[in-house]
Amino acid sequence: MAGTKVTVGVVGGSGYSGGELLRLLVGHPQAELAWVTSRGEKQLESIHRNLLGSGLRFIREAEATRCDVVFLCLPSRESMDRAGDYLRQGSKVIDLGSDFRLKDAALFERVYRAKHVSWDLVAEAPYGATELHREAIRAARLVANPGCFAYATILGLAPLVREGWIDLERIVVDALSGSSGAGAEPTVPTHQSEIGNSTFPYNAVGHRHTPEMEQELSAVARRNVTINFTPYYAPFSRGILASCHGFLNRKVSRADVVSLYREAYRSEHFVRVLDMEKDSKVSWQYLPYPSVASVAGSNYVQIGADVDEQRGRVVIFSALDNLGKGAAGSAIQNMNCMLGLPEETGLAGFGLHP
Amino acid sequence: MAGTKVTVGVVGGSGYSGGELLRLLVGHPQAELAWVTSRGEKQLESIHRNLLGSGLRFIREAEATRCDVVFLCLPSRESMDRAGDYLRQGSKVIDLGSDFRLKDAALFERVYRAKHVSWDLVAEAPYGATELHREAIRAARLVANPGCFAYATILGLAPLVREGWIDLERIVVDALSGSSGAGAEPTVPTHQSEIGNSTFPYNAVGHRHTPEMEQELSAVARRNVTINFTPYYAPFSRGILASCHGFLNRKVSRADVVSLYREAYRSEHFVRVLDMEKDSKVSWQYLPYPSVASVAGSNYVQIGADVDEQRGRVVIFSALDNLGKGAAGSAIQNMNCMLGLPEETGLAGFGLHP
Amino acid sequence: MAGTKVTVGVVGGSGYSGGELLRLLVGHPQAELAWVTSRGEKQLESIHRNLLGSGLRFIREAEATRCDVVFLCLPSRESMDRAGDYLRQGSKVIDLGSDFRLKDAALFERVYRAKHVSWDLVAEAPYGATELHREAIRAARLVANPGCFAYATILGLAPLVREGWIDLERIVVDALSGSSGAGAEPTVPTHQSEIGNSTFPYNAVGHRHTPEMEQELSAVARRNVTINFTPYYAPFSRGILASCHGFLNRKVSRADVVSLYREAYRSEHFVRVLDMEKDSKVSWQYLPYPSVASVAGSNYVQIGADVDEQRGRVVIFSALDNLGKGAAGSAIQNMNCMLGLPEETGLAGFGLHP
Amino acid sequence: MAGTKVTVGVVGGSGYSGGELLRLLVGHPQAELAWVTSRGEKQLESIHRNLLGSGLRFIREAEATRCDVVFLCLPSRESMDRAGDYLRQGSKVIDLGSDFRLKDAALFERVYRAKHVSWDLVAEAPYGATELHREAIRAARLVANPGCFAYATILGLAPLVREGWIDLERIVVDALSGSSGAGAEPTVPTHQSEIGNSTFPYNAVGHRHTPEMEQELSAVARRNVTINFTPYYAPFSRGILASCHGFLNRKVSRADVVSLYREAYRSEHFVRVLDMEKDSKVSWQYLPYPSVASVAGSNYVQIGADVDEQRGRVVIFSALDNLGKGAAGSAIQNMNCMLGLPEETGLAGFGLHP
Repeated sequence: MAGTKVTVGVVGGSGYSGGELLRLLVGHPQAELAWVTSRGEKQLESIHRNLLGSGLRFIREAEATRCDVVFLCLPSRESMDRAGDYLRQGSKVIDLGSDFRLKDAALFERVYRAKHVSWDLVAEAPYGATELHREAIRAARLVANPGCFAYATILGLAPLVREGWIDLERIVVDALSGSSGAGAEPTVPTHQSEIGNSTFPYNAVGHRHTPEMEQELSAVARRNVTINFTPYYAPFSRGILASCHGFLNRKVSRADVVSLYREAYRSEHFVRVLDMEKDSKVSWQYLPYPSVASVAGSNYVQIGADVDEQRGRVVIFSALDNLGKGAAGSAIQNMNCMLGLPEETGLAGFGLHP
Repeated sequence: MAGTKVTVGVVGGSGYSGGELLRLLVGHPQAELAWVTSRGEKQLESIHRNLLGSGLRFIREAEATRCDVVFLCLPSRESMDRAGDYLRQGSKVIDLGSDFRLKDAALFERVYRAKHVSWDLVAEAPYGATELHREAIRAARLVANPGCFAYATILGLAPLVREGWIDLERIVVDALSGSSGAGAEPTVPTHQSEIGNSTFPYNAVGHRHTPEMEQELSAVARRNVTINFTPYYAPFSRGILASCHGFLNRKVSRADVVSLYREAYRSEHFVRVLDMEKDSKVSWQYLPYPSVASVAGSNYVQIGADVDEQRGRVVIFSALDNLGKGAAGSAIQNMNCMLGLPEETGLAGFGLHP
Repeated sequence: MAGTKVTVGVVGGSGYSGGELLRLLVGHPQAELAWVTSRGEKQLESIHRNLLGSGLRFIREAEATRCDVVFLCLPSRESMDRAGDYLRQGSKVIDLGSDFRLKDAALFERVYRAKHVSWDLVAEAPYGATELHREAIRAARLVANPGCFAYATILGLAPLVREGWIDLERIVVDALSGSSGAGAEPTVPTHQSEIGNSTFPYNAVGHRHTPEMEQELSAVARRNVTINFTPYYAPFSRGILASCHGFLNRKVSRADVVSLYREAYRSEHFVRVLDMEKDSKVSWQYLPYPSVASVAGSNYVQIGADVDEQRGRVVIFSALDNLGKGAAGSAIQNMNCMLGLPEETGLAGFGLHP
Repeated sequence: MAGTKVTVGVVGGSGYSGGELLRLLVGHPQAELAWVTSRGEKQLESIHRNLLGSGLRFIREAEATRCDVVFLCLPSRESMDRAGDYLRQGSKVIDLGSDFRLKDAALFERVYRAKHVSWDLVAEAPYGATELHREAIRAARLVANPGCFAYATILGLAPLVREGWIDLERIVVDALSGSSGAGAEPTVPTHQSEIGNSTFPYNAVGHRHTPEMEQELSAVARRNVTINFTPYYAPFSRGILASCHGFLNRKVSRADVVSLYREAYRSEHFVRVLDMEKDSKVSWQYLPYPSVASVAGSNYVQIGADVDEQRGRVVIFSALDNLGKGAAGSAIQNMNCMLGLPEETGLAGFGLHP
């Protein structure tokens, strides 16, 4: 396929997910970035200062040429009519927004407080958790990329709920996100002076990613799964750590859980299950659990587990880069999948440490 | 009482709790800091650089004179024999360590992997959560100050478990601590390069503060309470945010829970329950929940709540300064209590913002 | 004076300096906060979340009653007409803004791009660096509180330029500020995701505090002093570290410089000169220099020095809390001074560590 | 050259520079990492948690096989005898340490307090600032990679001192480094609780990188250049911002300086000179200056400039990743250069934002 790169367009490239998509596309050996749009007046290299010297600039969407693949990085409710336009041009479309994720129209309307204008497209758009819907994604022309919190949680819980080892109605998930999850627009709570020494929960019982989690995990479990989800912002830029707590309905050890996950993700290049044993001589156990910082800038997910045999609890820690595997990275993994390329293409890099 | 200040000694003043105790004692209008000990060779003002100009210096414990009150800031298992010595001198003793907290000998031995050498003193030492044991503390000559995570969790859950509104066997608590909770000794996980962009869980199912929580909350509930507790360190210096999740066994609203807490803590100066309503026009709800940063340097606790009526979950957020209300602040509150002083004496300051 | 507290009003209390002023005034034993104004609609405890439980609320300036002392915390150009109003009511006025600092009208107009409407008041308002203008401040009814960067630099350089030990035309000052120096309003560069892993210079050759520094230091030196000043924001909330480099015109040692500063600030309670010797066995020398974090929340300044005898350079490090000694703390010190109170009143607390 | 990758060994891979080298080598299309040594017992993936799943492990140096290229990541004074061993095996050697940088034996002995045991090799080892010594590096079998602070400063000042526009005896450089510059070993000053809200100068007048700067810049200037250098650690992980202040000896504008630098680095792929004009409508000028965070994880240097025409000062800001262009990145650039590969090979990635 050398010499015949796919042409790629990005609609809405001034946010953080859009910027990460650009960074990854510039380095993708099989993709040629044809254009990136932005409605504002700003210079690309003043917003994405890491791309200084890239020569990239924003265009208006009206100037966009036909591309093989179009990524939509738009606010909620703005992708629903754009997707159809690009599909009609014959482009494959990957939506990083939330418009095509929920498959229940009433639920969509309740969560997003809007009527969907392209409901026919929703059914054909697989939910873009590659690990769960690989075959459908390969065949799709439109993919609904997962929400960052949802993806971390789904990967953290899928094997457990599939096996039915835990009470599916009593799952608790606390998930911390780096501040980039709040977007590029300055706000009071993400002002450095406010969050620099703090962490804060928000939308503690009604976050919009919860229905995605429940939809996908219920499909995996073939029964209704309830997720009690609370998100937090923390004073770092990138990364999500989702802590998924379940109450065990049978006697399993930490080793059992680790084995289950290693087996479940055995062929997933980007999902790394920590199988280090706990060292009884160490008074601080942290190495057996994931490192959020270590996946920053990468498409990897790190998953770790522990079991409280006395109290009957299992906890799964799932760490990913909210802009990487939680957004732009998985979008490119899905593009690779849709194009029949090896999924790792352009995504091989490890995260930064420190 | 002017003119007749109580004399105070601090055993083990080189750590962070000890340092905060010094900062507070220097400003306490009724206390006179007589001495502070340290086994190392270091200069006090090189360790506690905020106290530059205080003129304080460390002495060896052998040089310590009799004091009215002695604070013990020692590692686990080191207070148990020191407490008796000071009690025999007629001092009142407040132990910031863990040796006198657990009232079940077998449990103590299992958790701390040591035989207790002064078990007779354990029974007389009230657990120093002032809000729960005020009368006993007033009468005590030895107080076991709470662990920081335990105190945040106990204050967060006491009203709910007292009322029995939640399933007492299915409580999940995720608690984030600033890195000062790990102590003044440099370690790999608290090295700035390692934690600066990260957050990490540790001892995810067996943290030593869990039995304290269960002991105290079971006493409040008059039934066994199980706490599924997981601690984390986060990239800020001070503060704990404990998120306490319970499954409701009756239909209650957020307003009901807020009312319960306001009533429960109505006469507690240092416990502030946020009763702000959620603003339906705001897409990011965070103001109704506590701000960890805002209690830094103070003895205040901020408590907020939310209820997911659809899924039957309540979450209580409890925020305090791990070195303040979680250690040195509550130790001084207990001292005030033991001496018959107003509890706020020397503790009136609000936290810093930003 | 017990029983007869002075009444105090704060005009513009929604910013960070205003908030810090409130925190300090609430704890000031001789002051009674009568009111605090804000033009916005916001609730005080939602903005200054540390003051939860204080009961404070904002009023409109129209509701303000006459007070003994009024603090103005207003943007540039907005104090110039307000000051006169309050002076006519017989209030003493302390302006935390920049309208009365520069004593050269042409310079004022050039720097602030505005015509001054109350130029007659400028002459009577001493520049509020207490250490330099104590007598004038005692007698004043209007004081122009220093800019935060300016104050750190002036205290760092005054003894050296007074003695004339350095080339007064070749002084270089790089000063880092915590992000709170940029104010409470969210902006792109102080967005946590942008600054959390970064530091950035701004207005690198034309910062508005430079003329203040030159005015005050020229007065001290009795000759023209030129300051080559560059400010930076760094990813912490509070604190300024000003590094003041001078080229020595005589042979002096580090000990000579330390002695000079200790002598110069001998009677200044809030200026702490580090006189620790450098330890030749230590490969990392940092303890002889100030700790920015250690003055957070306090009115202290820490000053350290070093001399490169080979190259003929002296460097003075001056650290203070931009909201404390750099704004609200010094404003209260000036109030104390104007009222004949001990300067330390209400300002005794040490900074937080860690 | 496909199919004939060069074999590469890394001596001392447990530190941060070593870890970054591994991350880059794993992604280098023309290099095959044959081995990496460490003296400790630790597991590679427990230290470099980003490399989880890489399959890399440490070996003892005794097990090392012959490689085409060997990187030495050793403490000061430990490379000097190792380099010869590998050269004798016919390997090309790139030393990331400081043993071969200084070309004056007396100076070396004074700075490093040691006698050099392989002085003959020093002369043949070009100082590895590729932009200055490209031809020598191409021909070399041993390269002395620059110190991170030195490299940032040298790139920041070379064009100016070459032109002689500034007073070469009065240059002041303040440089902030992320905490990773202090190494992977935990220490008190880099403990998160200590530095998280702070910044601290260290070795303020005698940092070991100063002689490197003076050696290289004097060679560029063909006259003695004196650098008055002070380093700082700041609370972020990666990156150096060097602020280089010079006193102009002629009348030049900001535009003149920017032009000089653009011309000087016109053919340097990795050196990006910001040529954005200052926008007179913007009250906060920061975009014309470099962004440290934006080069994290990359081999790029960002350089910006400003001129105070009134006071006759020029300031050059030079930003790079201390572990990237300041260590591992430039080491690989030098390897590429020594092997005749395009210098960008394996280094093409842009930094992360945010």
